[in-house]
Amino acid sequence: MAELAQTNGRSSNRRRFLAEASALATFLAGCVRSKPASEKSDTTTTSGLGPPSHLNQNPDSRSDTSLRHGMPATSSTPGTMGGGNVPFQRFDPALPPVSATRTTKLHFTAREVPLRVRDDTVVAAWTFEGNIPGPILHVRQGDTVEFTLTNAGHVPHSMDFHASQLDPKVAFRSVLPGQSLSFTYKPKYSGAFLYHCGTAPVLMHMGSGMFGAIIVDPLTPLRKAKEFVLVQNEFYLGPAQNGVHPFDYNKMLETLPDLFAFNGRPGQYQVAPIHVKHGDLVRFYVLNAGPTHPCAFHVVGGQFDTVYLGAPPANAIHGVQTFSVPAGGGMIFEMEAEIPGEFVFVNHAFGHGQKGAIGLLIVEE
Amino acid sequence: MAELAQTNGRSSNRRRFLAEASALATFLAGCVRSKPASEKSDTTTTSGLGPPSHLNQNPDSRSDTSLRHGMPATSSTPGTMGGGNVPFQRFDPALPPVSATRTTKLHFTAREVPLRVRDDTVVAAWTFEGNIPGPILHVRQGDTVEFTLTNAGHVPHSMDFHASQLDPKVAFRSVLPGQSLSFTYKPKYSGAFLYHCGTAPVLMHMGSGMFGAIIVDPLTPLRKAKEFVLVQNEFYLGPAQNGVHPFDYNKMLETLPDLFAFNGRPGQYQVAPIHVKHGDLVRFYVLNAGPTHPCAFHVVGGQFDTVYLGAPPANAIHGVQTFSVPAGGGMIFEMEAEIPGEFVFVNHAFGHGQKGAIGLLIVEE
Amino acid sequence: MAELAQTNGRSSNRRRFLAEASALATFLAGCVRSKPASEKSDTTTTSGLGPPSHLNQNPDSRSDTSLRHGMPATSSTPGTMGGGNVPFQRFDPALPPVSATRTTKLHFTAREVPLRVRDDTVVAAWTFEGNIPGPILHVRQGDTVEFTLTNAGHVPHSMDFHASQLDPKVAFRSVLPGQSLSFTYKPKYSGAFLYHCGTAPVLMHMGSGMFGAIIVDPLTPLRKAKEFVLVQNEFYLGPAQNGVHPFDYNKMLETLPDLFAFNGRPGQYQVAPIHVKHGDLVRFYVLNAGPTHPCAFHVVGGQFDTVYLGAPPANAIHGVQTFSVPAGGGMIFEMEAEIPGEFVFVNHAFGHGQKGAIGLLIVEE
Repeated sequence: MAELAQTNGRSSNRRRFLAEASALATFLAGCVRSKPASEKSDTTTTSGLGPPSHLNQNPDSRSDTSLRHGMPATSSTPGTMGGGNVPFQRFDPALPPVSATRTTKLHFTAREVPLRVRDDTVVAAWTFEGNIPGPILHVRQGDTVEFTLTNAGHVPHSMDFHASQLDPKVAFRSVLPGQSLSFTYKPKYSGAFLYHCGTAPVLMHMGSGMFGAIIVDPLTPLRKAKEFVLVQNEFYLGPAQNGVHPFDYNKMLETLPDLFAFNGRPGQYQVAPIHVKHGDLVRFYVLNAGPTHPCAFHVVGGQFDTVYLGAPPANAIHGVQTFSVPAGGGMIFEMEAEIPGEFVFVNHAFGHGQKGAIGLLIVEE
Repeated sequence: MAELAQTNGRSSNRRRFLAEASALATFLAGCVRSKPASEKSDTTTTSGLGPPSHLNQNPDSRSDTSLRHGMPATSSTPGTMGGGNVPFQRFDPALPPVSATRTTKLHFTAREVPLRVRDDTVVAAWTFEGNIPGPILHVRQGDTVEFTLTNAGHVPHSMDFHASQLDPKVAFRSVLPGQSLSFTYKPKYSGAFLYHCGTAPVLMHMGSGMFGAIIVDPLTPLRKAKEFVLVQNEFYLGPAQNGVHPFDYNKMLETLPDLFAFNGRPGQYQVAPIHVKHGDLVRFYVLNAGPTHPCAFHVVGGQFDTVYLGAPPANAIHGVQTFSVPAGGGMIFEMEAEIPGEFVFVNHAFGHGQKGAIGLLIVEE
Repeated sequence: MAELAQTNGRSSNRRRFLAEASALATFLAGCVRSKPASEKSDTTTTSGLGPPSHLNQNPDSRSDTSLRHGMPATSSTPGTMGGGNVPFQRFDPALPPVSATRTTKLHFTAREVPLRVRDDTVVAAWTFEGNIPGPILHVRQGDTVEFTLTNAGHVPHSMDFHASQLDPKVAFRSVLPGQSLSFTYKPKYSGAFLYHCGTAPVLMHMGSGMFGAIIVDPLTPLRKAKEFVLVQNEFYLGPAQNGVHPFDYNKMLETLPDLFAFNGRPGQYQVAPIHVKHGDLVRFYVLNAGPTHPCAFHVVGGQFDTVYLGAPPANAIHGVQTFSVPAGGGMIFEMEAEIPGEFVFVNHAFGHGQKGAIGLLIVEE
């Protein structure tokens, strides 16, 4: 983890750009906000109200988290086309070991790619490092994080670390396609923090997959445990185009998701569960990338001995059946695996959990 | 409470089954997921996305909390028909006395019945013991709970106790109509815990009424109080058939409820309020059966001296106007009744509270 | 703050009433619940279910927080007409100094007025003191608050202080147009408390703008800070009539908002940010007037050193990226402004934040 393999964003971006040249015109033609296809989309427009006009007046970083006109209505870009033969890959939820050194150097590439999120569904994903979520990061409180973002996509992207305290106008500013940006920080607090693209409209960039988790250990490490990271997100998908479902901005605004997932694939840990052993302490770092709904985290057949609402090892409550992680938040849930068995973990807001925010923890004998 | 009267599920089920034989064919014909009636139902299908396919591949317990194809689209079963003369009955919110012995033997029968939830509305209820919610249970931390479930309904049902730590694959497994299942556990933590049917799809079973509360006292009891249990739930109802509104699974997936209630009947405690006396400590055990939305619990004219976020008597905060109980969760709210008067308790998320999650606490002189 | 200027509600109401006489007939004609205009409104009626009937049987205060039939379907009243030349005014979020004396005398007037909430949008506002939100109040724990409400509007209004412990039937009862009501209380707890109109249906009155914040300092004041009050609310608007968008009750029941705001104007603090200095402690009092959705409060580029879930200075957690304030709730968020820069504060439930619950904190060198 000390240094993630650099993916050489610029050259790969150049190759991609050439290969996709013919698709670009089509994409740019779609870069105006299209008329909502469904009648439901009228919800936000029946009253003749557009997006808040005040939010569109600043050309600089101030608009980086606001609505923009003329944006693409979906996540379809030249990079996301042609997903027919993209294989499905389970996302490993295991927390990687903490960095061996006190300085962690990271180079992420923002990519727009087709991603298979279940057997029958490929989405037009906006990603860090080609995946939803991006890589799980693991550092210590006070470590130095040296971060570089290269944008190998077709629209501006950026990086916002919830583990950092930085001037967003400088560090989290948007990076144009083909360009890079670097910044450094030292996490002040321990905890389970989200990172995500902060380019306007944030709803579109988070809603299209640009998020991940950085776990910051406290100075005195927590008790040894089997540790897993679960990032919940919502899917708002449009009709497939050439086999790829774009994320749909108007559906994001309507806030009625089609699907949910932990770590980007609805129900993936039901098919390929998480395994621990009887007697283990199990620690879930539960992040909620939203973009909108809370995650009422629960383990069927289990109870949380500890939930950290703020920075561990303090800020804890004990004896909890279910606790809600807000969109944009993260909390840590600990459970003694005292009994062997098959334990479903789920967003207990079942109208949401039932759509894919559900998985299986197997406690072996 | 030491032993609830056994309702002899098997024989009553046999009688019911015979009586309802003619209705069964009709019911089975409806056992495929019907086309959503309203245009709104297109929300979840406009993109051509069915339920997560990964979630339908396990024939065993792993699918017990996932989507299933071929399920009934509503809660109409032969058991729920003919509700014209079902009387309305207020649900007593008083916490019953704790079990006199350290072992509590329970025999619940799962029943599908017509239930009048307000003067003009009978619903096709899936229940424990014929009511929404099921019986309020009251035990002590470390007690032994010996539980048996008999399924007197027409579809599989099961029991998931949030107060327990058990292997769900064994204890919470589905029970076929006419069959029974038993398990035993000792609650590790004190608190206000939900119990509910865990048969797939859980959204359908919880959304149709199969839930209740078990209150677990800490080893050192909390201060003497007037104690009440309020279980919030949402109603997603289809058009009445022969005077009975079925719960509608597609509306549950759309997450826009018609009605809310504390203890199964919208607004029942406005008509027939809860009474305490001036000087009493009032303790509300607030459970949220959802299936989806949080409950922002508040008492108009009051403030909570204590809210227990986790196991009492620890894990408390003080001086609180409103706190949110997530779907699948439970918290304990204490208020000194220092002033006589009429105090409305409500889900302060008023778009929800206004639909029936509201009642009246009268503090007498 | 010791005594707000009295607005002489009765005489102004009389003048208003005469001036608007021609409009009154039109208004009264609209006083029955109109048929929902959009197909979406069928959501709550497809099943043939009206509002909970139990909730409509009490003519007295018990119905003050319940549904009523025959109510106006929108907030259009004679007072809200003709907003063409209403200027836009930023709402000052600064917490005013605490009352110099231990008794605070307040006289609020309930008014229905046209209010410009962004450059292109005037709404038919129901208000305290002519603004959304009402005035920010600032007192100390144990102070005496002497409050009078005069209703200069055209429908009944009332006042419910979350900072108080009072019999709602007496203190929070509805005040008819042209009448007044007074009550006195001493806040028992410190904290960030909502006040709002409690007249039935509360959803309509809160949803049309009748809310504000009262900040109660603990006996030992918190550490010196730059203090700001942010009240989030949702907008459910109907089509403009003569340039004024009424709030729409049926849309409130559907719970899918058009816009969000901090302090009544979507995105106002992006155009005119909040300023502090490097080294300041920044304290946000975050209130959520809803009416329905939570506020997942977050500062981009910042972390909260302290969040008070209950009464300060206790009931705090530390090292928090995002925490959710429920509808009807209030919490206090502290952040050391350790770094100069431009920090966006936002409801990180981005499907909501993106609609206007977003602003900018500038930390100057």
